[in-house]
Amino acid sequence: MLENDIYLALIHSPVVNKKGEVIASALTTIDMHDIARAGKTFGVKGIFVVTPLEDQKVLAREVLDHWICGVGGRINPFRKQALELIKIVSSFDDVQKEIVKTSGKPVISIATSAARHKGAIAADSFSQKLEDNFSYVIAFGTAWGLSNDFIKQCDGILEPVKGHTGYNHLSVRSAVSILLDRIFRV
Amino acid sequence: MLENDIYLALIHSPVVNKKGEVIASALTTIDMHDIARAGKTFGVKGIFVVTPLEDQKVLAREVLDHWICGVGGRINPFRKQALELIKIVSSFDDVQKEIVKTSGKPVISIATSAARHKGAIAADSFSQKLEDNFSYVIAFGTAWGLSNDFIKQCDGILEPVKGHTGYNHLSVRSAVSILLDRIFRV
Repeated sequence: MLENDIYLALIHSPVVNKKGEVIASALTTIDMHDIARAGKTFGVKGIFVVTPLEDQKVLAREVLDHWICGVGGRINPFRKQALELIKIVSSFDDVQKEIVKTSGKPVISIATSAARHKGAIAADSFSQKLEDNFSYVIAFGTAWGLSNDFIKQCDGILEPVKGHTGYNHLSVRSAVSILLDRIFRV
Repeated sequence: MLENDIYLALIHSPVVNKKGEVIASALTTIDMHDIARAGKTFGVKGIFVVTPLEDQKVLAREVLDHWICGVGGRINPFRKQALELIKIVSSFDDVQKEIVKTSGKPVISIATSAARHKGAIAADSFSQKLEDNFSYVIAFGTAWGLSNDFIKQCDGILEPVKGHTGYNHLSVRSAVSILLDRIFRV
């Protein structure tokens, strides 16, 4: 069982659109549910929803309020337990500051991508390299994925989930679920 | 690479609600997208959306029409390729008839559940037991899962996806994604 401090960040900016332009994407509220449920299943320490857009933060906050403090949490306490993992922040810098504040350890940032990148590490090798004196945050891009500049600023990148068909258009919800399973199943 | 005939069925009836009562659930359209994208990634032969409810079939048909024949397919051909895997049928009997018609082979039905069941088989063992002279259909329950009677009528059942926390409330989208990765990653 993996006991390391692993956090997730769901990035809405900077990501790219279909044309490869760097954008801030809109929130997809089901991402919060699915990623929180997967994160809770595998034991991640926290999940950050990252968006600089004020109206999207308000929307994310409303979802959390409904399911944590509101009627949603009373109807479905399991959903409440999962969504309690989530914090809403403005930037990936804020993610790393929050993690340092909580864990007291330096943070290693890991990007993900549906494309192959030089030096990418397989999820199971990543698990084997984890050290107790660091925290780790794995960043997932919404829309058409993390921007190249964002990826370059991370300390590492995971190999993409590949099937056998050449088709590489999983939802971010599926990609998070599969990578968590591969990482925590050591 | 797994070349066997594996199909998926997303069951909306008979499933259970929170109280354990057998119901027909409403369609969640994002299930169709996520499961089709995961199915396309790993190379499943087809995906059946199973509902006896006429209005839910109409809704499912509208989603497919938009993304396959309509503007959605022109804007996002990758989504079209994935959703083309889907057929809408009324019952699990119909699923099995359709598969026999397509593959010409007898069908082995495999249930899934978030709970432990006696005799459940691990996903990787399942992959190793596959034979070329059968087709296989893996059934996933929406709502709070497949009914016990449904599970009993299947030829086998897969072990649930377990993390390390005791929390077993993954979305069906996550469960499908993880189990496909475990099955096809042999």
